[in-house]
Amino acid sequence: MKAPSSLEQLIQALKVLPGVGPKSASRMAYHLLQRDQGGAANLAHAIEYAIATLKHCRRCNTFTEGELCEICADEDRNHQQLCVVEMPTDLLMIEQTLAYHGLYFVLMGRLSPLDGIGPNEIALARLLERAVDGEVQEVVIATNFTVEGEATAHYLAELMRTRGLQVSRIARGLPVGGELEHVDPGTLAQALVERRKL
Amino acid sequence: MKAPSSLEQLIQALKVLPGVGPKSASRMAYHLLQRDQGGAANLAHAIEYAIATLKHCRRCNTFTEGELCEICADEDRNHQQLCVVEMPTDLLMIEQTLAYHGLYFVLMGRLSPLDGIGPNEIALARLLERAVDGEVQEVVIATNFTVEGEATAHYLAELMRTRGLQVSRIARGLPVGGELEHVDPGTLAQALVERRKL
Ligand SMILES: [Zn+2]
Ligand SMILES: [Zn+2]
Repeated sequence: MKAPSSLEQLIQALKVLPGVGPKSASRMAYHLLQRDQGGAANLAHAIEYAIATLKHCRRCNTFTEGELCEICADEDRNHQQLCVVEMPTDLLMIEQTLAYHGLYFVLMGRLSPLDGIGPNEIALARLLERAVDGEVQEVVIATNFTVEGEATAHYLAELMRTRGLQVSRIARGLPVGGELEHVDPGTLAQALVERRKL
Repeated sequence: MKAPSSLEQLIQALKVLPGVGPKSASRMAYHLLQRDQGGAANLAHAIEYAIATLKHCRRCNTFTEGELCEICADEDRNHQQLCVVEMPTDLLMIEQTLAYHGLYFVLMGRLSPLDGIGPNEIALARLLERAVDGEVQEVVIATNFTVEGEATAHYLAELMRTRGLQVSRIARGLPVGGELEHVDPGTLAQALVERRKL
């Protein structure tokens, strides 16, 4: 006696979600099938729609439905500043502070050799191309203050400096080990204002 | 500036999963889109396939792809015993013991008034119909030994007894290989109260 194969397939499929092991996958599958088939159908549709719709902004690499995201398309932003963040959520957090008016570059990750994430897995080549376009004067590195975020920052700073760019790092107003996502906008604004030259 | 709407929709849709709040939903969405689009497409398909394929066994209420599950269709099982469990996973656990050869009834939940799960949300009416079919002689209640599982067991036992059925409850006690030193006082107390004559 085993679970029916379509149920087993659903449980296996749910394990692609980060932080979801066999136990949670099983609980999720039963919940979807037994208590929320409408929500389940909607989830399937949302996944397919997002895959079909979302691409990376040609300039900043964040997720967007068009060729250029709203920010990159905004002529009123300061095109001489380029803020480098790990994830789109970090970009949204910085936007909420209203303390930054330049453009962004979203790495979609951070260097993490142990997880197999090297320079090729984050969009480093595209960032460099972007940073030396002649318009960018200052690169503000706003990766997280985690071990991996810091390593990424140092690696980026080195690359930028050898290309003659001015590089700064948002200030360590964030707690050590802290992530942008978990900090209040005021602290984050302060960290932007007090960015250090690297 | 907000996330693109198809990304926002995906994050919202992921929140139907039990135990997934806004933060995890966001992390899951980025992971699916950035690191595992194949797994994401597969998940969408598995959800749709499971919804389309799975139904409840006409006799025992577990998930099955046919009208009757393998166990209910098995003529060699003891049709006079009916074991009541909360979820299909519980049924699979009992099957693994090879210690039970009767049939099952799967409630697909347990009474939990605080979560809005009353007698109508679990398949009580169908269980009663099944239990009084003339064939069933003994009902073995194997709901969990949680507060809610116990309450469900007492409620069921009462219903069954008034219908003249013999009702039993799986035993509580120390695990096989268990040491008194490592068991909680409540379990040990129950093991003493429910001691068997040798
Ligand atoms: Zn952009
Ligand atoms: Zn069945």
